[in-house]
Amino acid sequence: MKTVKTFSELRVARSKLAEPVGLVPTMGYLHEGHLSLARRARQECTSLIATIFINPTQFGPGEDLSTYPRDIPRDLELLEKEGVDLVWIPNAIDMYPLGFQSWVRVSELTQPLEGARRPEHFRGVTTVVTKLFNATMPQKAYFGQKDAQQAAVIRRMVSDLNYHIQIVVCPTVREPDGLAMSSRNTYLDKDERRAAAVLYRALNTAQDAYLKGERDPNILRSLMNAELISEPFARPQYVSCAHPDTLMEHFGRVEDGALLSMAVYIGGTRLIDNILLEE
Amino acid sequence: MKTVKTFSELRVARSKLAEPVGLVPTMGYLHEGHLSLARRARQECTSLIATIFINPTQFGPGEDLSTYPRDIPRDLELLEKEGVDLVWIPNAIDMYPLGFQSWVRVSELTQPLEGARRPEHFRGVTTVVTKLFNATMPQKAYFGQKDAQQAAVIRRMVSDLNYHIQIVVCPTVREPDGLAMSSRNTYLDKDERRAAAVLYRALNTAQDAYLKGERDPNILRSLMNAELISEPFARPQYVSCAHPDTLMEHFGRVEDGALLSMAVYIGGTRLIDNILLEE
Repeated sequence: MKTVKTFSELRVARSKLAEPVGLVPTMGYLHEGHLSLARRARQECTSLIATIFINPTQFGPGEDLSTYPRDIPRDLELLEKEGVDLVWIPNAIDMYPLGFQSWVRVSELTQPLEGARRPEHFRGVTTVVTKLFNATMPQKAYFGQKDAQQAAVIRRMVSDLNYHIQIVVCPTVREPDGLAMSSRNTYLDKDERRAAAVLYRALNTAQDAYLKGERDPNILRSLMNAELISEPFARPQYVSCAHPDTLMEHFGRVEDGALLSMAVYIGGTRLIDNILLEE
Repeated sequence: MKTVKTFSELRVARSKLAEPVGLVPTMGYLHEGHLSLARRARQECTSLIATIFINPTQFGPGEDLSTYPRDIPRDLELLEKEGVDLVWIPNAIDMYPLGFQSWVRVSELTQPLEGARRPEHFRGVTTVVTKLFNATMPQKAYFGQKDAQQAAVIRRMVSDLNYHIQIVVCPTVREPDGLAMSSRNTYLDKDERRAAAVLYRALNTAQDAYLKGERDPNILRSLMNAELISEPFARPQYVSCAHPDTLMEHFGRVEDGALLSMAVYIGGTRLIDNILLEE
């Protein structure tokens, strides 16, 4: 496994990789969710590039850019075990040099849900993903279902901007109690960690009701919210029942594939989770 | 020479081209300026793609989208003579399908000059160029110096977004009286056509003064403006003496390489032209 930092090193290393090339973009501090993307990519691609970059432009003021957890040596060990061929760890000043001013924006899918609470977050995401795509030129790129809106936004961007890159969205990987894996789970203390399982419980409560025939999106949202507020450490920011591609909230009858999602503060830590409803 | 319309046809045809591939993006109604780009690309690249697409998103309300001149059969003949391998003529509804919402924006270089008079023009340009780059995957792309701000904006975008594409900017091609070639020259009637030579005369007046030692940008602008308004058919919209990369207006002493540019209405037709000052 080769590790590079600069664009010129990346170009040389990329030119030696046999295609198809798979890309696993990460912000590091890897967990089983990331590794599941690498494993899937390893199965589907001849060569595998992972990137580790805590992208400053997708963090808002007051968010956790400065405290976001980091452990590059451990990340590299894990990626090597998954058979990654090339790891690119760019510097922020190379990615956003003085005078940087080109932005990619997806205008509508970024408005609701996370976009409503994190202005400019998705502009940062789509811009950095564009840069990673252009720099690494993959045939496939792997993202997690946990960031459901991000996946929808990137799919739209790839289609709108005519990228010839297949976007593969992999299932959320969970802890034994159902908590979705996230680098941010490290922020939780012991009580909060126990409380954080409420997100998945709330999603399952709605899924169970759906299985029993409930099709009213307001009732599904209310069930999730009731479950969340029953946990003293939890403070829901939003609960949503929306179309998985348009992200428009459902008002009438809900159907299979609807996206149930939520953002919840557990103490001072903001967590998100989601499932797709299924019969 | 192969001609394709759809993305899937393009992909198949592109995959058969030997690299390096050169791209000449055009809006059609080709003149010697376009052909000079194709000739340069033919010398420098193994394969050559030209695109013909009148991009609706770079036209503002009240601009000449509906009347922009078209002659595809003639364009194809000319491109074939220049040794173009592949011509892509996309449809507007394939390029901007229902739900299209992804935009590329260069924020600062697009503010002055053309950007100040044509809001959203450059957003349309950078978005369509991104789409053309992603769809055709060239190693080099060719643009004309006549659209000086466009060239600066695209260079910045390519650098900021990490495209591994070399941008080649070719000299403006002129009619015998100095008028810069433009598909829009066809809008001029006989008197206007004669009057249109005033743009290049004005640029040369400033260049001559510069050669004689004039270094005050205000005097250079005034000289250009005086020449323009001496022509009864001409109505200057702006004259500029600016840095060629930042496009910031010069206030102090002007140096070699400064961009002299202007937009001028000749009758109802808006023309632009520019030169780079040289000793």
